[in-house]
Amino acid sequence: MVRTIDWVDGAVEIIDQTELPARTVTRRLSTVDELVAAIRALAVRGAPALGVAGALGVALAARQYRDAALAGAVHRLETARPTAVNLARGVRRAAARLADGPDAVLAEALAVRDEEIASSAAMAARGADLVTELCGPAPRLLTHCNTGGLATVVGGTALGVIAELHRRGALGGVVASETRPLLQGARLTAWELGQLGVAYQVAVDGAGPFLMARGMVDAVIVGADRICANGDVVNKVGTYAHALGAQRAGIPFLVVAPESTVDASTPTGGDVEIEDRPADEVFAFGGRRVVPDGAAAINPAFDITPHDLVTAIVTDRRTLRPPY
Amino acid sequence: MVRTIDWVDGAVEIIDQTELPARTVTRRLSTVDELVAAIRALAVRGAPALGVAGALGVALAARQYRDAALAGAVHRLETARPTAVNLARGVRRAAARLADGPDAVLAEALAVRDEEIASSAAMAARGADLVTELCGPAPRLLTHCNTGGLATVVGGTALGVIAELHRRGALGGVVASETRPLLQGARLTAWELGQLGVAYQVAVDGAGPFLMARGMVDAVIVGADRICANGDVVNKVGTYAHALGAQRAGIPFLVVAPESTVDASTPTGGDVEIEDRPADEVFAFGGRRVVPDGAAAINPAFDITPHDLVTAIVTDRRTLRPPY
Repeated sequence: MVRTIDWVDGAVEIIDQTELPARTVTRRLSTVDELVAAIRALAVRGAPALGVAGALGVALAARQYRDAALAGAVHRLETARPTAVNLARGVRRAAARLADGPDAVLAEALAVRDEEIASSAAMAARGADLVTELCGPAPRLLTHCNTGGLATVVGGTALGVIAELHRRGALGGVVASETRPLLQGARLTAWELGQLGVAYQVAVDGAGPFLMARGMVDAVIVGADRICANGDVVNKVGTYAHALGAQRAGIPFLVVAPESTVDASTPTGGDVEIEDRPADEVFAFGGRRVVPDGAAAINPAFDITPHDLVTAIVTDRRTLRPPY
Repeated sequence: MVRTIDWVDGAVEIIDQTELPARTVTRRLSTVDELVAAIRALAVRGAPALGVAGALGVALAARQYRDAALAGAVHRLETARPTAVNLARGVRRAAARLADGPDAVLAEALAVRDEEIASSAAMAARGADLVTELCGPAPRLLTHCNTGGLATVVGGTALGVIAELHRRGALGGVVASETRPLLQGARLTAWELGQLGVAYQVAVDGAGPFLMARGMVDAVIVGADRICANGDVVNKVGTYAHALGAQRAGIPFLVVAPESTVDASTPTGGDVEIEDRPADEVFAFGGRRVVPDGAAAINPAFDITPHDLVTAIVTDRRTLRPPY
């Protein structure tokens, strides 16, 4: 499997996600500023992958700069994007080794990468075991948004479980919901499933609950942006509607996310500020604006799935079931 | 107000809904096959409008064909699309007058048209009364797909109620869900609301249930393609997910549709053939294909909302409440 991000011969190499699925372009980033630009452009995205990008960026910086220039480069990396805590965390972890020289920094960055890979593998194995336990030998799974190797380094969270089931010959089918407005499902999840050789069908987001009611889906499996202390799950908008559909259909609704996503300091989903994003994301289709002039939009980027709709939460270390 | 479909100087004239909102184009359809193609392409759509289209199509057929060719034309009209009961019903009603000659067929088709216009006005008044009774003086309503004058002849069903509330000064706001894959909400409902001077916000379909959970919606109001004997509602895909959201949020879920949509001969939603439409509808965004080559899609055009999720059904003659 191709790694989304890696260290190759003294530089960072990424799969440019802005080019997918039309073209698979590997970009070689030899300087800190090239990497920062790639992060800003979402050429590399996904919280775990950003953590690795930040750590590898410090390894570049340690070879490229000294003294004040080095500190400035580390700061540019740390602040390349504001939201994902993983980016700053990866930067700081590698930067803590700067006093020991470039090789020590690189070793730490590679450790961050390897831990992400190991975490994905652990979630995949644990999640696949759980799906088989709950759904039998050939479940048809529905997943939302993109939670595969593109968001981590290789493997993924929910999509990593799907890939593992495929490797075990224990997967009956996949529905990838397209994930409006930015189509992470139709663009990225579809591309990853194609790379893995997994047969899939894309569905519009509104169809998911009906496909469950029709008996065409055996379980829903998604990632998470944050898991609250009471088990409420913050994830890409559209997740909650799928959870309601799963509950009504009487099928499992499973969440797969690393331990770093579990946030014991946030009591409930109601305590999370949900980002409202620009209307233009909703209105632009392939560069064409489909709505009338003067239209407004309401565009929450995430939603909250209450814990009573969540059958189980799988992390790299635990499988949590109610009561959370 | 402009009529979506009408009989003008010996031909059927429609507003081509595939061109909206960019351009308002009136198309003149002089043959049965032109009309069938327009129905298949969704240039004219919406259950009540399809009933009128079917009836006017038989009027065209009566002038264009005789004997076996006439029967074939009637059959092509009746089967142009499978789900909305109105189309076949409009066709059969006009076809029942074929023995009396083309003028009698046309008179019957025009009666179907006039009854739809009167029906829209009756639903608007009855539905607006009900919304005010259930939700108070300034409700914020969410609607799905397009149920305005474009779906009927003039006025509409659910959107006709919204328009009537606006005229009464008794409307607090409107969320129009975009209605993937063909964006009838973002394109057509937004266009109609703009024409009416009603302020609105477009939302992706996956956001609806979360907006309800957030307390931003006071009721959901939709149309129907078919209402079964037990109260199950067949409507545009995505309706069911919104009904689940309304139930969970404890807000009314209202269906507005003419009596012609009520199909006592279909016992339950499970007895309805749901039209699966081509994958290309899901994949094309403004002419650009966003999914990888080789991608498949599952694209049900409609879904089924079980009757227990339906607070009330408003027709041109009755307001139905459970048990149906």
